[in-house]
Amino acid sequence: MSNLFEKELSSEKLFSGKIIDLYVQEVELPNGKKSKREVVKHPGAVAVIARTSENKLLLVEQYRKPLERTLVEIPAGKLEEGEEPIVTAKRELEEETGYTTDKLSLLISFYTSPGFADELVHLYLAEDIQKMDVKAELDEDEFVNLMEVTLKEAEQLLHEQRIYDAKTAYAVAYLQLQEAAKK
Amino acid sequence: MSNLFEKELSSEKLFSGKIIDLYVQEVELPNGKKSKREVVKHPGAVAVIARTSENKLLLVEQYRKPLERTLVEIPAGKLEEGEEPIVTAKRELEEETGYTTDKLSLLISFYTSPGFADELVHLYLAEDIQKMDVKAELDEDEFVNLMEVTLKEAEQLLHEQRIYDAKTAYAVAYLQLQEAAKK
Repeated sequence: MSNLFEKELSSEKLFSGKIIDLYVQEVELPNGKKSKREVVKHPGAVAVIARTSENKLLLVEQYRKPLERTLVEIPAGKLEEGEEPIVTAKRELEEETGYTTDKLSLLISFYTSPGFADELVHLYLAEDIQKMDVKAELDEDEFVNLMEVTLKEAEQLLHEQRIYDAKTAYAVAYLQLQEAAKK
Repeated sequence: MSNLFEKELSSEKLFSGKIIDLYVQEVELPNGKKSKREVVKHPGAVAVIARTSENKLLLVEQYRKPLERTLVEIPAGKLEEGEEPIVTAKRELEEETGYTTDKLSLLISFYTSPGFADELVHLYLAEDIQKMDVKAELDEDEFVNLMEVTLKEAEQLLHEQRIYDAKTAYAVAYLQLQEAAKK
Protein backbone atom coordinates (compact mmCIF):
# COMPACT_ATOMS: atom_id res chain seq x y z
CA MET A 1 0.00 0.00 0.00
CA SER A 2 2.97 2.37 0.43
CA ASN A 3 2.72 3.40 -3.23
CA LEU A 4 -0.94 4.38 -2.77
CA PHE A 5 -0.82 6.43 0.46
CA GLU A 6 -2.28 9.94 0.47
CA LYS A 7 -0.69 12.26 3.02
CA GLU A 8 -3.10 14.68 4.69
CA LEU A 9 -1.92 18.27 4.36
CA SER A 10 -4.98 19.92 5.91
CA SER A 11 -8.48 19.05 7.08
CA GLU A 12 -11.32 21.54 7.40
CA LYS A 13 -14.58 20.68 9.14
CA LEU A 14 -17.37 22.31 7.16
CA PHE A 15 -20.41 20.84 8.90
CA SER A 16 -21.22 19.13 12.16
CA GLY A 17 -24.66 17.52 12.19
CA LYS A 18 -26.89 15.17 14.16
CA ILE A 19 -25.73 12.19 12.12
CA ILE A 20 -22.87 13.20 9.85
CA ASP A 21 -19.94 15.60 9.82
CA LEU A 22 -18.37 16.89 6.62
CA TYR A 23 -14.67 17.57 6.03
CA VAL A 24 -12.71 18.80 3.03
CA GLN A 25 -9.14 17.58 3.18
CA GLU A 26 -6.14 18.49 1.10
CA VAL A 27 -3.89 15.51 0.38
CA GLU A 28 -0.56 14.87 -1.27
CA LEU A 29 -0.99 12.14 -3.87
CA PRO A 30 1.53 9.32 -4.43
CA ASN A 31 3.01 11.30 -7.34
CA GLY A 32 3.57 14.37 -5.15
CA LYS A 33 0.69 16.39 -6.63
CA LYS A 34 -2.06 17.83 -4.47
CA SER A 35 -5.76 17.04 -4.53
CA LYS A 36 -8.86 17.51 -2.39
CA ARG A 37 -10.98 14.83 -0.73
CA GLU A 38 -14.56 15.30 0.47
CA VAL A 39 -15.09 13.13 3.54
CA VAL A 40 -18.33 12.39 5.39
CA LYS A 41 -17.84 11.06 8.93
CA HIS A 42 -20.60 8.79 10.24
CA PRO A 43 -20.83 6.94 13.59
CA GLY A 44 -21.40 3.57 11.90
CA ALA A 45 -24.49 1.40 11.91
CA VAL A 46 -25.85 -2.08 12.45
CA ALA A 47 -28.30 -4.22 10.48
CA VAL A 48 -29.99 -7.45 11.49
CA ILE A 49 -31.09 -10.56 9.60
CA ALA A 50 -33.89 -12.00 11.73
CA ARG A 51 -36.35 -14.76 10.89
CA THR A 52 -39.43 -15.80 12.81
CA SER A 53 -40.10 -19.39 13.88
CA GLU A 54 -42.11 -19.68 10.62
CA ASN A 55 -38.89 -18.79 8.74
CA LYS A 56 -40.23 -15.38 7.71
CA LEU A 57 -37.65 -12.59 7.30
CA LEU A 58 -38.36 -9.39 9.23
CA LEU A 59 -38.29 -6.27 7.05
CA VAL A 60 -39.23 -2.68 7.72
CA GLU A 61 -40.59 -0.16 5.26
CA GLN A 62 -39.34 3.34 5.95
CA TYR A 63 -39.37 6.71 4.20
CA ARG A 64 -35.87 7.70 3.12
CA LYS A 65 -35.71 11.44 2.61
CA PRO A 66 -32.48 11.36 0.53
CA LEU A 67 -34.35 9.21 -2.02
CA GLU A 68 -37.77 10.86 -1.63
CA ARG A 69 -39.37 7.41 -1.36
CA THR A 70 -39.80 4.44 0.93
CA LEU A 71 -37.49 1.44 0.94
CA VAL A 72 -38.02 -2.00 2.40
CA GLU A 73 -34.93 -2.88 4.43
CA ILE A 74 -33.72 -5.25 7.10
CA PRO A 75 -33.93 -3.63 10.56
CA ALA A 76 -31.01 -1.23 11.02
CA GLY A 77 -29.88 1.84 12.84
CA LYS A 78 -26.89 3.92 13.66
CA LEU A 79 -24.55 3.40 16.59
CA GLU A 80 -25.02 5.60 19.62
CA GLU A 81 -21.83 7.03 21.07
CA GLY A 82 -19.95 4.42 23.09
CA GLU A 83 -22.51 1.69 22.32
CA GLU A 84 -21.26 -1.79 21.37
CA PRO A 85 -22.60 -2.76 17.93
CA ILE A 86 -24.23 -5.93 19.28
CA VAL A 87 -26.16 -3.82 21.82
CA THR A 88 -27.33 -1.50 19.02
CA ALA A 89 -28.37 -4.53 16.97
CA LYS A 90 -30.56 -5.88 19.79
CA ARG A 91 -32.03 -2.42 20.47
CA GLU A 92 -32.86 -1.74 16.81
CA LEU A 93 -34.43 -5.18 16.40
CA GLU A 94 -36.63 -4.52 19.43
CA GLU A 95 -37.57 -0.96 18.46
CA GLU A 96 -38.29 -1.61 14.79
CA THR A 97 -39.89 -5.06 14.95
CA GLY A 98 -41.09 -5.80 18.48
CA TYR A 99 -39.03 -9.00 18.52
CA THR A 100 -36.01 -9.68 20.70
CA THR A 101 -33.30 -12.28 21.23
CA ASP A 102 -30.07 -12.81 23.10
CA LYS A 103 -28.66 -14.84 20.23
CA LEU A 104 -26.96 -12.36 17.92
CA SER A 105 -23.81 -13.13 15.96
CA LEU A 106 -21.78 -10.90 13.65
CA LEU A 107 -21.88 -12.13 10.05
CA ILE A 108 -19.84 -9.43 8.32
CA SER A 109 -18.98 -5.75 8.51
CA PHE A 110 -18.59 -3.52 5.45
CA TYR A 111 -18.04 0.09 4.49
CA THR A 112 -20.98 1.32 2.45
CA SER A 113 -19.42 4.19 0.45
CA PRO A 114 -15.64 4.15 0.91
CA GLY A 115 -15.10 6.82 -1.74
CA PHE A 116 -16.62 9.61 0.31
CA ALA A 117 -17.82 8.26 3.70
CA ASP A 118 -16.51 6.20 6.61
CA GLU A 119 -19.86 4.56 7.46
CA LEU A 120 -19.22 0.96 8.57
CA VAL A 121 -22.23 -1.38 8.80
CA HIS A 122 -22.11 -4.39 11.09
CA LEU A 123 -24.49 -7.09 9.89
CA TYR A 124 -25.80 -9.46 12.57
CA LEU A 125 -27.71 -12.72 12.40
CA ALA A 126 -30.45 -12.92 15.04
CA GLU A 127 -31.65 -16.39 15.98
CA ASP A 128 -34.44 -17.71 18.23
CA ILE A 129 -36.29 -14.39 18.15
CA GLN A 130 -39.30 -13.93 20.44
CA LYS A 131 -42.16 -11.48 20.22
CA MET A 132 -42.00 -8.94 23.06
CA ASP A 133 -45.00 -8.41 25.32
CA VAL A 134 -44.56 -4.66 25.17
CA LYS A 135 -43.20 -3.19 21.96
CA ALA A 136 -40.10 -1.03 22.39
CA GLU A 137 -40.44 2.65 21.45
CA LEU A 138 -39.02 3.94 18.16
CA ASP A 139 -36.98 7.14 18.05
CA GLU A 140 -39.32 10.12 17.97
CA ASP A 141 -38.48 10.90 14.31
CA GLU A 142 -38.75 7.28 13.13
CA PHE A 143 -41.78 5.65 11.50
CA VAL A 144 -41.73 2.13 10.06
CA ASN A 145 -44.09 -0.55 8.78
CA LEU A 146 -43.12 -4.08 9.76
CA MET A 147 -43.27 -6.86 7.17
CA GLU A 148 -42.69 -10.61 7.57
CA VAL A 149 -41.84 -12.30 4.27
CA THR A 150 -40.59 -15.57 2.84
CA LEU A 151 -37.28 -15.63 0.97
CA LYS A 152 -39.24 -15.92 -2.28
CA GLU A 153 -41.23 -12.78 -1.37
CA ALA A 154 -38.01 -10.97 -0.47
CA GLU A 155 -36.58 -11.89 -3.90
CA GLN A 156 -39.73 -10.46 -5.49
CA LEU A 157 -39.37 -7.21 -3.48
CA LEU A 158 -35.76 -7.00 -4.70
CA HIS A 159 -36.93 -7.54 -8.28
CA GLU A 160 -39.50 -4.75 -7.87
CA GLN A 161 -36.81 -2.47 -6.39
CA ARG A 162 -38.78 -1.99 -3.19
CA ILE A 163 -35.76 -3.66 -1.58
CA TYR A 164 -33.11 -1.41 -3.11
CA ASP A 165 -30.20 -0.95 -0.69
CA ALA A 166 -26.84 -2.68 -0.37
CA LYS A 167 -27.22 -4.24 3.09
CA THR A 168 -30.64 -5.74 2.33
CA ALA A 169 -29.51 -6.98 -1.11
CA TYR A 170 -26.55 -8.59 0.67
CA ALA A 171 -28.91 -10.15 3.24
CA VAL A 172 -31.02 -11.71 0.48
CA ALA A 173 -27.87 -13.12 -1.18
CA TYR A 174 -26.78 -14.49 2.22
CA LEU A 175 -30.12 -16.28 2.67
CA GLN A 176 -29.96 -17.62 -0.90
CA LEU A 177 -26.50 -19.03 -0.13
CA GLN A 178 -27.85 -20.68 3.04
CA GLU A 179 -30.66 -22.24 0.98
CA ALA A 180 -28.22 -23.42 -1.70
CA ALA A 181 -26.00 -25.01 0.95
CA LYS A 182 -28.95 -27.11 2.20
CA LYS A 183 -29.40 -28.76 -1.21
CA MET B 1 -46.28 4.35 2.12
CA SER B 2 -48.73 7.23 2.65
CA ASN B 3 -48.42 6.80 6.41
CA LEU B 4 -44.63 7.15 6.21
CA PHE B 5 -44.21 10.20 3.94
CA GLU B 6 -42.10 13.13 5.14
CA LYS B 7 -43.11 16.48 3.66
CA GLU B 8 -40.21 18.80 2.87
CA LEU B 9 -40.67 22.20 4.50
CA SER B 10 -37.29 23.68 3.54
CA SER B 11 -33.99 22.61 2.01
CA GLU B 12 -30.71 24.43 2.50
CA LYS B 13 -27.62 23.64 0.45
CA LEU B 14 -24.63 23.87 2.78
CA PHE B 15 -21.87 22.56 0.54
CA SER B 16 -21.31 22.01 -3.16
CA GLY B 17 -18.24 19.88 -3.90
CA LYS B 18 -16.46 18.00 -6.67
CA ILE B 19 -18.25 14.77 -5.78
CA ILE B 20 -20.93 15.44 -3.19
CA ASP B 21 -23.34 18.20 -2.20
CA LEU B 22 -24.75 18.53 1.32
CA TYR B 23 -28.25 19.67 2.25
CA VAL B 24 -30.04 20.12 5.54
CA GLN B 25 -33.78 19.74 5.11
CA GLU B 26 -36.62 20.42 7.47
CA VAL B 27 -39.44 17.88 7.17
CA GLU B 28 -42.89 17.35 8.60
CA LEU B 29 -43.10 13.84 10.03
CA PRO B 30 -46.15 11.56 9.63
CA ASN B 31 -47.32 12.62 13.11
CA GLY B 32 -47.19 16.32 12.19
CA LYS B 33 -44.03 17.07 14.18
CA LYS B 34 -40.97 18.61 12.58
CA SER B 35 -37.49 17.15 12.21
CA LYS B 36 -34.28 17.74 10.28
CA ARG B 37 -32.67 15.47 7.70
CA GLU B 38 -29.02 15.63 6.62
CA VAL B 39 -28.82 14.65 2.97
CA VAL B 40 -25.71 13.99 0.85
CA LYS B 41 -26.32 14.14 -2.91
CA HIS B 42 -24.03 12.01 -5.05
CA PRO B 43 -24.04 11.48 -8.84
CA GLY B 44 -24.19 7.69 -8.50
CA ALA B 45 -21.59 5.09 -9.39
CA VAL B 46 -20.92 1.85 -11.19
CA ALA B 47 -19.01 -1.27 -10.21
CA VAL B 48 -17.95 -4.21 -12.37
CA ILE B 49 -17.56 -7.93 -11.77
CA ALA B 50 -15.02 -9.04 -14.37
CA ARG B 51 -13.18 -12.33 -14.66
CA THR B 52 -10.30 -13.20 -16.95
CA SER B 53 -10.30 -16.24 -19.26
CA GLU B 54 -8.51 -18.06 -16.39
CA ASN B 55 -11.55 -17.28 -14.19
CA LYS B 56 -9.61 -14.79 -12.07
CA LEU B 57 -11.60 -11.90 -10.59
CA LEU B 58 -10.21 -8.42 -11.27
CA LEU B 59 -9.75 -6.34 -8.12
CA VAL B 60 -8.10 -3.00 -7.50
CA GLU B 61 -6.37 -1.86 -4.34
CA GLN B 62 -6.88 1.83 -3.69
CA TYR B 63 -6.25 4.28 -0.84
CA ARG B 64 -9.53 5.48 0.64
CA LYS B 65 -8.99 8.74 2.46
CA PRO B 66 -12.24 8.54 4.49
CA LEU B 67 -10.91 5.29 6.03
CA GLU B 68 -7.21 6.28 6.14
CA ARG B 69 -6.32 2.93 4.60
CA THR B 70 -6.38 0.94 1.38
CA LEU B 71 -9.24 -1.34 0.39
CA VAL B 72 -9.35 -4.07 -2.23
CA GLU B 73 -12.47 -3.53 -4.34
CA ILE B 74 -14.03 -4.50 -7.63
CA PRO B 75 -13.38 -1.82 -10.28
CA ALA B 76 -15.75 1.10 -9.76
CA GLY B 77 -16.20 4.77 -10.31
CA LYS B 78 -18.68 7.57 -10.22
CA LEU B 79 -20.97 8.59 -13.06
CA GLU B 80 -19.96 11.60 -15.10
CA GLU B 81 -22.78 14.04 -15.82
CA GLY B 82 -25.04 12.75 -18.55
CA GLU B 83 -23.11 9.48 -18.93
CA GLU B 84 -25.04 6.21 -19.26
CA PRO B 85 -24.04 3.83 -16.43
CA ILE B 86 -23.01 1.10 -18.90
CA VAL B 87 -20.61 3.56 -20.57
CA THR B 88 -19.12 4.45 -17.18
CA ALA B 89 -18.76 0.73 -16.39
CA LYS B 90 -16.78 0.10 -19.59
CA ARG B 91 -14.63 3.19 -19.03
CA GLU B 92 -13.82 2.34 -15.40
CA LEU B 93 -12.99 -1.26 -16.31
CA GLU B 94 -10.58 0.02 -18.98
CA GLU B 95 -9.01 2.73 -16.83
CA GLU B 96 -8.56 0.68 -13.67
CA THR B 97 -7.67 -2.73 -15.11
CA GLY B 98 -6.49 -2.38 -18.72
CA TYR B 99 -9.14 -4.86 -19.81
CA THR B 100 -12.16 -4.13 -21.98
CA THR B 101 -15.30 -5.77 -23.31
CA ASP B 102 -18.50 -4.96 -25.14
CA LYS B 103 -20.38 -7.57 -23.13
CA LEU B 104 -21.65 -5.78 -20.03
CA SER B 105 -24.96 -6.58 -18.35
CA LEU B 106 -26.60 -4.97 -15.33
CA LEU B 107 -26.88 -7.41 -12.41
CA ILE B 108 -28.41 -5.17 -9.75
CA SER B 109 -28.52 -1.56 -8.58
CA PHE B 110 -28.57 -0.55 -4.92
CA TYR B 111 -28.45 2.51 -2.71
CA THR B 112 -25.40 2.32 -0.47
CA SER B 113 -26.44 4.53 2.47
CA PRO B 114 -30.13 5.41 2.17
CA GLY B 115 -30.24 6.99 5.62
CA PHE B 116 -28.12 9.97 4.65
CA ALA B 117 -27.10 9.72 0.97
CA ASP B 118 -28.67 9.14 -2.44
CA GLU B 119 -25.69 7.29 -3.94
CA LEU B 120 -26.97 4.53 -6.25
CA VAL B 121 -24.46 1.89 -7.40
CA HIS B 122 -25.09 -0.02 -10.62
CA LEU B 123 -23.32 -3.38 -10.54
CA TYR B 124 -22.40 -4.84 -13.95
CA LEU B 125 -21.19 -8.24 -15.03
CA ALA B 126 -18.44 -8.02 -17.66
CA GLU B 127 -17.91 -11.09 -19.83
CA ASP B 128 -15.35 -12.03 -22.51
CA ILE B 129 -12.91 -9.38 -21.30
CA GLN B 130 -9.78 -8.73 -23.39
CA LYS B 131 -6.48 -7.14 -22.41
CA MET B 132 -6.06 -3.77 -24.14
CA ASP B 133 -2.93 -3.06 -26.17
CA VAL B 134 -2.63 0.41 -24.68
CA LYS B 135 -3.79 0.87 -21.11
CA ALA B 136 -6.40 3.60 -20.61
CA GLU B 137 -5.38 6.55 -18.43
CA LEU B 138 -6.64 6.82 -14.87
CA ASP B 139 -8.01 10.09 -13.54
CA GLU B 140 -5.15 12.33 -12.47
CA ASP B 141 -5.94 11.88 -8.77
CA GLU B 142 -6.44 8.11 -8.96
CA PHE B 143 -3.84 5.44 -8.13
CA VAL B 144 -4.64 1.73 -8.05
CA ASN B 145 -2.88 -1.64 -7.90
CA LEU B 146 -4.50 -4.33 -10.05
CA MET B 147 -4.99 -7.82 -8.62
CA GLU B 148 -6.28 -10.98 -10.33
CA VAL B 149 -7.55 -13.54 -7.82
CA THR B 150 -9.47 -16.81 -7.60
CA LEU B 151 -12.81 -16.87 -5.76
CA LYS B 152 -11.05 -18.67 -2.90
CA GLU B 153 -8.46 -15.89 -2.70
CA ALA B 154 -11.24 -13.27 -2.77
CA GLU B 155 -12.95 -15.07 0.14
CA GLN B 156 -9.64 -14.94 2.04
CA LEU B 157 -9.28 -11.19 1.33
CA LEU B 158 -12.82 -10.72 2.68
CA HIS B 159 -11.92 -12.74 5.78
CA GLU B 160 -8.82 -10.54 6.30
CA GLN B 161 -10.96 -7.39 5.83
CA ARG B 162 -8.81 -6.20 2.95
CA ILE B 163 -12.05 -6.57 0.98
CA TYR B 164 -14.25 -4.53 3.28
CA ASP B 165 -16.92 -2.68 1.30
CA ALA B 166 -20.54 -3.48 0.51
CA LYS B 167 -20.35 -3.74 -3.28
CA THR B 168 -17.32 -6.06 -3.25
CA ALA B 169 -18.79 -8.20 -0.44
CA TYR B 170 -21.95 -8.46 -2.58
CA ALA B 171 -19.85 -9.41 -5.61
CA VAL B 172 -18.18 -12.24 -3.67
CA ALA B 173 -21.61 -13.51 -2.52
CA TYR B 174 -22.83 -13.33 -6.14
CA LEU B 175 -19.89 -15.45 -7.33
CA GLN B 176 -20.43 -17.92 -4.46
CA LEU B 177 -24.07 -18.25 -5.57
CA GLN B 178 -22.96 -18.90 -9.15
CA GLU B 179 -20.60 -21.61 -7.91
CA ALA B 180 -23.32 -23.16 -5.73
CA ALA B 181 -25.71 -23.23 -8.70
CA LYS B 182 -23.19 -25.28 -10.72
CA LYS B 183 -23.19 -28.08 -8.15
